[in-house]
Amino acid sequence: MSTIDLQAVKGTRDFYPDDMRLRTWLFGLWREVAAQYGFEEYDSCVLESEELYIRKAGDEITDQLYNFIDKGGRRVALRPEITPSLARMVMAKGTSLPLPARWFAIAQCFRYENMQRGRKREHFQWNMDVIGLASEAAEAELMAAQCAFLRATGLSLSAQKCEIIIKVSNRQVIQHFLEGLGITGDAFAAVCVIIDKHDKIGRDATIHALAGLGIAADAAGRILAILAVTGLAEATAIVGADNPGISSLTRLMSHLSDFGIAHCARIDLSVIRGLSYYTGCVWEVFDASGSLPRAIAGGGRYDRLIESFGGTPLAMVGFGFGDVVIAEILSERGLIPASVLARGIDDVVYPMSAAEFPVANQLARALRAQGRKVAVDYSERRFKHVVKRAEDDGAKRLLILGVDEVKNRRVTVRQLGKERVENQVALSELGVADPVSP
Amino acid sequence: MSTIDLQAVKGTRDFYPDDMRLRTWLFGLWREVAAQYGFEEYDSCVLESEELYIRKAGDEITDQLYNFIDKGGRRVALRPEITPSLARMVMAKGTSLPLPARWFAIAQCFRYENMQRGRKREHFQWNMDVIGLASEAAEAELMAAQCAFLRATGLSLSAQKCEIIIKVSNRQVIQHFLEGLGITGDAFAAVCVIIDKHDKIGRDATIHALAGLGIAADAAGRILAILAVTGLAEATAIVGADNPGISSLTRLMSHLSDFGIAHCARIDLSVIRGLSYYTGCVWEVFDASGSLPRAIAGGGRYDRLIESFGGTPLAMVGFGFGDVVIAEILSERGLIPASVLARGIDDVVYPMSAAEFPVANQLARALRAQGRKVAVDYSERRFKHVVKRAEDDGAKRLLILGVDEVKNRRVTVRQLGKERVENQVALSELGVADPVSP
Repeated sequence: MSTIDLQAVKGTRDFYPDDMRLRTWLFGLWREVAAQYGFEEYDSCVLESEELYIRKAGDEITDQLYNFIDKGGRRVALRPEITPSLARMVMAKGTSLPLPARWFAIAQCFRYENMQRGRKREHFQWNMDVIGLASEAAEAELMAAQCAFLRATGLSLSAQKCEIIIKVSNRQVIQHFLEGLGITGDAFAAVCVIIDKHDKIGRDATIHALAGLGIAADAAGRILAILAVTGLAEATAIVGADNPGISSLTRLMSHLSDFGIAHCARIDLSVIRGLSYYTGCVWEVFDASGSLPRAIAGGGRYDRLIESFGGTPLAMVGFGFGDVVIAEILSERGLIPASVLARGIDDVVYPMSAAEFPVANQLARALRAQGRKVAVDYSERRFKHVVKRAEDDGAKRLLILGVDEVKNRRVTVRQLGKERVENQVALSELGVADPVSP
Repeated sequence: MSTIDLQAVKGTRDFYPDDMRLRTWLFGLWREVAAQYGFEEYDSCVLESEELYIRKAGDEITDQLYNFIDKGGRRVALRPEITPSLARMVMAKGTSLPLPARWFAIAQCFRYENMQRGRKREHFQWNMDVIGLASEAAEAELMAAQCAFLRATGLSLSAQKCEIIIKVSNRQVIQHFLEGLGITGDAFAAVCVIIDKHDKIGRDATIHALAGLGIAADAAGRILAILAVTGLAEATAIVGADNPGISSLTRLMSHLSDFGIAHCARIDLSVIRGLSYYTGCVWEVFDASGSLPRAIAGGGRYDRLIESFGGTPLAMVGFGFGDVVIAEILSERGLIPASVLARGIDDVVYPMSAAEFPVANQLARALRAQGRKVAVDYSERRFKHVVKRAEDDGAKRLLILGVDEVKNRRVTVRQLGKERVENQVALSELGVADPVSP
């Protein structure tokens, strides 16, 4: 008989209990922070219509879509991101949805690429989005939530020692500049795709690619100069104070001060993001040490996504925060709490033989009714194996039931760990009723 | 511009925040009960290798597989159930996995069928499995966990009024009987598929289908007689006390007594389950009122699944508990708690104009640091709209910041709901530091 492939599908992950505890901890922190900021959880199905992702050429999502045709001939995809589903759901509600709405999701997302070895084809992504609020207060609130989560993991975000950095930009800075050159709409989106790659492809190739869109070398040089600025004053000097992107960034920085996180943010106009639907502020969160080249999280404003779906324009802004990069960082720095690394069982009940199973089950039932986490060891193994397993499982107590214990309506309770103190306790004291005489 | 399809993919669900709260509540109860029974959570990817599901003809899973060929030519499927992935993961661990293991999952599962109108193509399923324990104590423990969850939802499971019923059977009863007729292995699995449908197809069609497997009318009649029994004594009279299925059921009923749930269970040998891999005890949980024909949950022992995957045989037993039927039952009976139906925000901070945004953000930050769930209303809308929205969102307090409040470093706090009492509180009292003089 041939053996099945024991691996998960290429690029996907199995979550064994040890991995799952880490995931549960991360998801729990995400949910806690989102609730603190007044966000409500939503979800869509991991299987979505392909049409939601067919966008501008060069959009990183469209290029790596995990799409297929289902048995009914539908063009579907395993969602690469949840934002288009959010836009669809918001559109479907129409005017009945009270605005602004603050929604969050923890969504498994897929991509199909053949590139890097070991790169995953799925991950989970925390998304928070503000719907129907044009003010930069929304961006600031979202960044504050990201910071609140990062702080909750144990990373330092103080002004003295800030272990992360939010690189903030606004596409309107360059958009407005290009409008002056007559480059708008799809051509602007195409420029964004090129700019997004300019670090990888280098100065000459960038100028060459921009030339392909009809941008002269002089203008291309000025674009590259904008990308290199590190402060608002410097950017203003190039594009002028009346540039709407500059004034938006100025307002945003003021909001970030109110939230106490301005010191975490830095203007970096080379941040552009790979998604074609962004229209305003865009940002990426990085490990400040620079040891990880990949962003921890990213976000942006996309006020025209619903319009591109055929709906009435609606202000929307949000972020995506993956589970993989942050887990690497926390693991490297030893910030995964011991309680997450270890199992969390309270009691193991050990009936020494099958004759004691009935009382063991009654005892387990009574302990569970008291809210304790209880496993019964039905293995009838030798005592030392039972103790070892209970300790490996992180149990606090081992409750031993032999012939004598059952006869005397008692149980031997051994504290596990360093102490190993043993004492006998009446079953009735632990909530097990005495048997009714016949 | 054409508008996108606003519906989710056929047969899949969108979870708006109102739906999501119900889902989160259900999942929370599932996780709580599983932890009380000492089970650890695991997960696999929703995308799995198709080979895990290619089984006996007639197996309901294989017939409704949501499978496709990916861009790399792999035969994959959206998992119809998580049990085969569990078996794969257990096999991959080999002897390094301490046994018995108690694992649970909450898995989204898919099927592709064209049948009933309105029937869903995806659902979430709570699974609990005991790995490496041959004793019927495992089955009893799993049924006890199902009952603990059902009780936690508010359903009555007392001996006086039990709103659910567990129909219990054991495939070995009929298997052993058929062995006497020389029918074993694949032929037995095929018989199970026919028996599973005997209620739908009727007596004559069942006898005809069994004849197709070489089972004479006389033997078929006895099989149908076994399916009709309602107690162990009656079953024993037909198949004999030495039938291993009968002795297993006898032990199981004794364990169920220890767990205090024997009154919830009833022997029903017509329960066979649609999955071909079950080898021993099988059970289904029903609404006792009989108003819903579909089972709430089902489970069974499958000691040969890993063997069928080419591995060393390992005792395994588990159940699947879907989210759809139970939600219908709870909703019908008004058992969804009010706290699940309503939003759960604590405070809404209302800056009356943009000039108060900075103090509003500082106040929100201070309240969140105290663990409160806070939304800031940046809308600058008229007061009555702000109050209505805050009340619709279930907020307990509205914190109003106007020009005077900010000047006096105070905030107007209005209790929402019936009271609507208003008073003024110093910002410093709520944790907002006074501004440092320049």
